[in-house]
Amino acid sequence: MNREYEFVFKGFNPSREEYYGTILTLANGVIGVRGEIELYPSKYGFFASGIYDYTPIFYREIVNFPRVNGLYIKVNSKPILLANCDNLNLTRRLNISQGILYTSLECRFGKAELSYNSLRLVHRKRRNILLQHSRINLKNSEKLSIETPVELDKVNPLIPANIYIKHYEVVDMDIGGDYTSLLLKTIDNRYKVAIASKTIVLGHVEHVDKYTLTDKVVEVYDVDFKNMPIEVTRIVSISTSRETEDPLDKAVGELEKAVRDGRDLLVAEHISSWKSLWDNIKLRIDGDVEVEEKLLFYAFHLLQLVDDEQEYIMIPARGLHGLGYRGHVFWDTDIYTLPFYIAFTPEAARRILMYRYRILDKARLNARKNGYKGAQYPWESCDDGIEATPREIPLDVLGENRIRILTGDMEHHITADVAYAVHLYYEFTGDEEFLLNYGLEILFETARFWASRVEYDDDKKAYVIRNVMGPDEYHPSVDNSFYTNVMARKNLELAVKYYELALEKGNKWIDKVIEIGVTSEEVAYWRKIVNNIFIPCKNNGFCEEFEGYSNLRNMTTKTKGLGIVKVGEKFLELKDTQIIKQADVVAALFLLYDEFPKHVVEVNYKYYLPRTTHESSLSLPMYAGLAAKLGRIDEAYKLFKLALKTDLEDLYGNTSDGFHVATAGGLWTTLLLGFLGIKASSGKLVKIEPKLPEHWKSVELNISIGGRKLHLRVRKNSVQVDDKSRGEAKRIE
Amino acid sequence: MNREYEFVFKGFNPSREEYYGTILTLANGVIGVRGEIELYPSKYGFFASGIYDYTPIFYREIVNFPRVNGLYIKVNSKPILLANCDNLNLTRRLNISQGILYTSLECRFGKAELSYNSLRLVHRKRRNILLQHSRINLKNSEKLSIETPVELDKVNPLIPANIYIKHYEVVDMDIGGDYTSLLLKTIDNRYKVAIASKTIVLGHVEHVDKYTLTDKVVEVYDVDFKNMPIEVTRIVSISTSRETEDPLDKAVGELEKAVRDGRDLLVAEHISSWKSLWDNIKLRIDGDVEVEEKLLFYAFHLLQLVDDEQEYIMIPARGLHGLGYRGHVFWDTDIYTLPFYIAFTPEAARRILMYRYRILDKARLNARKNGYKGAQYPWESCDDGIEATPREIPLDVLGENRIRILTGDMEHHITADVAYAVHLYYEFTGDEEFLLNYGLEILFETARFWASRVEYDDDKKAYVIRNVMGPDEYHPSVDNSFYTNVMARKNLELAVKYYELALEKGNKWIDKVIEIGVTSEEVAYWRKIVNNIFIPCKNNGFCEEFEGYSNLRNMTTKTKGLGIVKVGEKFLELKDTQIIKQADVVAALFLLYDEFPKHVVEVNYKYYLPRTTHESSLSLPMYAGLAAKLGRIDEAYKLFKLALKTDLEDLYGNTSDGFHVATAGGLWTTLLLGFLGIKASSGKLVKIEPKLPEHWKSVELNISIGGRKLHLRVRKNSVQVDDKSRGEAKRIE
Repeated sequence: MNREYEFVFKGFNPSREEYYGTILTLANGVIGVRGEIELYPSKYGFFASGIYDYTPIFYREIVNFPRVNGLYIKVNSKPILLANCDNLNLTRRLNISQGILYTSLECRFGKAELSYNSLRLVHRKRRNILLQHSRINLKNSEKLSIETPVELDKVNPLIPANIYIKHYEVVDMDIGGDYTSLLLKTIDNRYKVAIASKTIVLGHVEHVDKYTLTDKVVEVYDVDFKNMPIEVTRIVSISTSRETEDPLDKAVGELEKAVRDGRDLLVAEHISSWKSLWDNIKLRIDGDVEVEEKLLFYAFHLLQLVDDEQEYIMIPARGLHGLGYRGHVFWDTDIYTLPFYIAFTPEAARRILMYRYRILDKARLNARKNGYKGAQYPWESCDDGIEATPREIPLDVLGENRIRILTGDMEHHITADVAYAVHLYYEFTGDEEFLLNYGLEILFETARFWASRVEYDDDKKAYVIRNVMGPDEYHPSVDNSFYTNVMARKNLELAVKYYELALEKGNKWIDKVIEIGVTSEEVAYWRKIVNNIFIPCKNNGFCEEFEGYSNLRNMTTKTKGLGIVKVGEKFLELKDTQIIKQADVVAALFLLYDEFPKHVVEVNYKYYLPRTTHESSLSLPMYAGLAAKLGRIDEAYKLFKLALKTDLEDLYGNTSDGFHVATAGGLWTTLLLGFLGIKASSGKLVKIEPKLPEHWKSVELNISIGGRKLHLRVRKNSVQVDDKSRGEAKRIE
Repeated sequence: MNREYEFVFKGFNPSREEYYGTILTLANGVIGVRGEIELYPSKYGFFASGIYDYTPIFYREIVNFPRVNGLYIKVNSKPILLANCDNLNLTRRLNISQGILYTSLECRFGKAELSYNSLRLVHRKRRNILLQHSRINLKNSEKLSIETPVELDKVNPLIPANIYIKHYEVVDMDIGGDYTSLLLKTIDNRYKVAIASKTIVLGHVEHVDKYTLTDKVVEVYDVDFKNMPIEVTRIVSISTSRETEDPLDKAVGELEKAVRDGRDLLVAEHISSWKSLWDNIKLRIDGDVEVEEKLLFYAFHLLQLVDDEQEYIMIPARGLHGLGYRGHVFWDTDIYTLPFYIAFTPEAARRILMYRYRILDKARLNARKNGYKGAQYPWESCDDGIEATPREIPLDVLGENRIRILTGDMEHHITADVAYAVHLYYEFTGDEEFLLNYGLEILFETARFWASRVEYDDDKKAYVIRNVMGPDEYHPSVDNSFYTNVMARKNLELAVKYYELALEKGNKWIDKVIEIGVTSEEVAYWRKIVNNIFIPCKNNGFCEEFEGYSNLRNMTTKTKGLGIVKVGEKFLELKDTQIIKQADVVAALFLLYDEFPKHVVEVNYKYYLPRTTHESSLSLPMYAGLAAKLGRIDEAYKLFKLALKTDLEDLYGNTSDGFHVATAGGLWTTLLLGFLGIKASSGKLVKIEPKLPEHWKSVELNISIGGRKLHLRVRKNSVQVDDKSRGEAKRIE
């Protein structure tokens, strides 16, 4: 990345601040700090990846920890709140090349004229460190006070939103020394989280004080300007019991080190780490700078969710960017985000799959609980892998009116999605070590689930899967969902394929098969199901989303699938119509494109598009990707551009709840597998079949395949692949 | 009251502050403000009588509204928190004669020496007004800032306590004018509450500012002392939609009026109102000033719960003093507190019973719901009269472990308790208007409940009541509870008696009987039950608490009933023993003393006392009262003195949750009906049979009987009654 990518946002509006809170979030895979401006109160603190606590209704949820980066300025005991400033001029620049958020502000406050400039970073290399540096000047007034508290009043809202839960309590606190340190524990006692904070003020400080209230620890500085701007550097170190048994010791150690090394070094190191990360991508779209920039914005936030040290990485549906979906992990991770990570940070992709391996035992228990064999992944999961989907959500405080949530009971396809993700990871990376030690077990155990899940239908003389919900959540409890059945078939097929591969490879591969206890009889049964599972397609190539879909009321949406339609709570009324929420048959056809004749794909794409509301943010990328593959480039581009608005223009109106990781991943999947048509197998690049929009002269990017870093230069009619690892160049016409 | 009664408390300890918060609560029957010191943060705001909101588990609860009387002082941007003051010298004086809380404080804060004096009152006459006046001086430092916020972060804790609910939201706010005003609504939209606040600072104020944050509205004053103390007067007016359709208009109007009239007038008016109230009591115990003072302390808090204007008055189990029992109303109101109000503020007693009349329709529905006829009062109720007893209380956030609460399903005696209270009220007041228009309906409808509740037992050839819980909550689900059966019998007997009275009185009384639809057949059936209900007593006079009690393991407590024993969650283990929680048989014998032979009373008193833990604060007064009646004066006095410690010495360790209204009322009941042996009938004083402790030379007090104010002067062997209304004097030897 030679040029710098920067996103500029102007102005301040309290009611929009939570939107900026999400899109300006800074994270490093371990800690996440939302982007609300430090000068204004916020209900958010920080998130720590993988740190959850018990909560009513939702089982467990990601913890909203104390705010550690608020910086509150008072002139004459009156806080400068942006809402009461005159001539406010606020500009925020998110520099994604550097991974730094710059804030600059000027305003009048009575007679006083304030100018404020800050940078904020969540350190890419020092995973414990948050740095915020502010330069403050004041004209027509001499004195102000600055508070840099640790705000211990942050809570998680429940349902209804006037109920809150505080997920942590203070175990230990030290404000006596050179810095402030706190040790917190989650209420369920599963985790400890330490915070060490140091504020360094350069300028004429008249008084410094520290004190604690029940809900905050405050450092306050009374400053006399004497015509000299002041500088406030805040370094906060956060450590959790996920990384060490003594997080307080670690947090303090990292803080001391950071203070010693100083701000300039911290910033330089951080920018340099981000530069390395971006080197893995280096996207250039000649002819469409706008799309290039926007894709990189989404890439930035995806990259912020991973790090190089955690044993496993959880990708919550809304990232480390908000409380949406309570920090739970869905199929979004496996199907939507994984291709991005596989292509650019395969080590992270491996760690993301390690989360699935880590909870495999719980998926086994889940299958047992539901009367099945093998491993059934929970529809929503947290740190411990237990099914965390709420079964009911109360609509009033007494819970007299409730919405029954069926996804947890019925969206069984996630189990096949995980198996698919393991396979895709292997196709691009050829990572045999992972396949042998973890992948096989996931593939076999998920296959076992499906083998116990299918039933043989004597009338159809085929295996069927009854009573499920596909990705389209407008239609609960259906039989023979196309998506579910073809993905289940794929899962079984993959198990057979990798079983055969293992036998071929011999030695420890065979030991592993024996260890898992897979027998040839079992595999024979899997094959039988693969060859004889019912797929609800007609002779003309049209596939019903599920059995009986054709009999439902035939309707199309007012946007004909080229815009989003918000149905809201009226979705219950749609179950008797052919209106669907999101790519379902289309999603399967995109994921398994090579397994269906093109006319089948085309018939179904054309049928479902005008019947789709895209009310799920997971829908548009799948349609865009499949449209590209089908050569319907203009339509693909239109859908793709619409999806690009998801967070950048708050398309769904709920970006304030967190970043849409599935859309972000889906956009990149559309680019990689749709527009560029990249295909890999067993760690080798197989082909690139570009379907570029007319005005895209070329697309250049780096990608990792089979452990090699390739540079691709793709034009409509030519593809050039440089193997940066070997210095080779290959041209594919 | 010629002398002034003042309770003095010295020192400050953050962990004890919530205890003082309860015992220094100021209230006027309409609003309640806890006694936490204004200089220190508190989680409490104010309570408004009768204002409840939906809440999980507990159905509805009294709302913890914003704090409106915090006064926060900062020197050099650092708050003077009492916890970080040196040489702290704090004295608080609760002057119950005036109804004023005086605070005086001196401390060193760095170099600065602060002296602070304040008075606080919740106005007795102007039911909307809270006044707090502070005089502040500072030595060795010139400047400080003072914040007088409305703190909008106050919430109610749920279970577990790390879950909170905020029961209100701001509908309207105006900080632009001469004062600050806010209109709040409860989340369930049932109530509006308005706050208007004005702070007047006298002194060298350099800057005044007002601003709002999401969780507070702040007025801040920067003050330069220039060797002159400053005075801060805060007047807050609170109005609710219980009193007017436009509470904002009312609150502002009352505030403006109060500001216009000025502090001196407000204080004088307030003290004068309290003087009138105390004139109704004028207790003097010659020979025991300590008991006299302590009784007046409890009287003060009881008087704080009533006012002269509300249509009905709710007496929550913990007063307007705390969140204990969520502000719910229990039998504590009817059986324990009512005698006090009947004797000294009969108008208030009437309004308290009007609460029972107001919810009579809901009691009818409750009976229907449970398969009975007539009216069954809920064990716990709130503003709307629906049964509000939680059925289960979760012990962990997921509710996997729960305590099943059986009281709501089984403590049916409350229905008879209400009827008893109506009767007692009539006996002392002779209030025929109430009896005719409200009392009869309560008496008949509750009798109907019992008539449908009893069953005829063919073996016993008697009516029985199965599957109830008596006041002793260690023994759930018993048959033929002595307390329940004798109180049910009393209820039916009263219905018969007042039916006969109505027939005798004729005219509109008969119209009322017809309106309620009571027939002579129905009354005949009531009589039949009265004459033939099973009471589990033996020939020797011993009465089983319930059938089979004698077969339980015979144990006594280690204190033999002369101290309290805390069993806590182990109470479940006691159900197979004869250990009981509180006066049960003894309570019935006290309430219905004249209906049992003295030897029966004595046998049972002696049996149950050593088997009672007194773990309920309702126990000691009943035992003390009955001991006095039995002439066991020393024991009575010992138990009475122990009960006097309840809130004054935090006997149960939970005074921080609120004031024990039942104990307070029970202490006065012990005095009036026990030590003094006052008996009235149909609004006439029938007799006074004093059983005074040896060292009590005389007891003097005023009492209302039959609308007349009597002055009693009771000695061991003589009684003098002066009718203050008529100027008569009568001596009873």
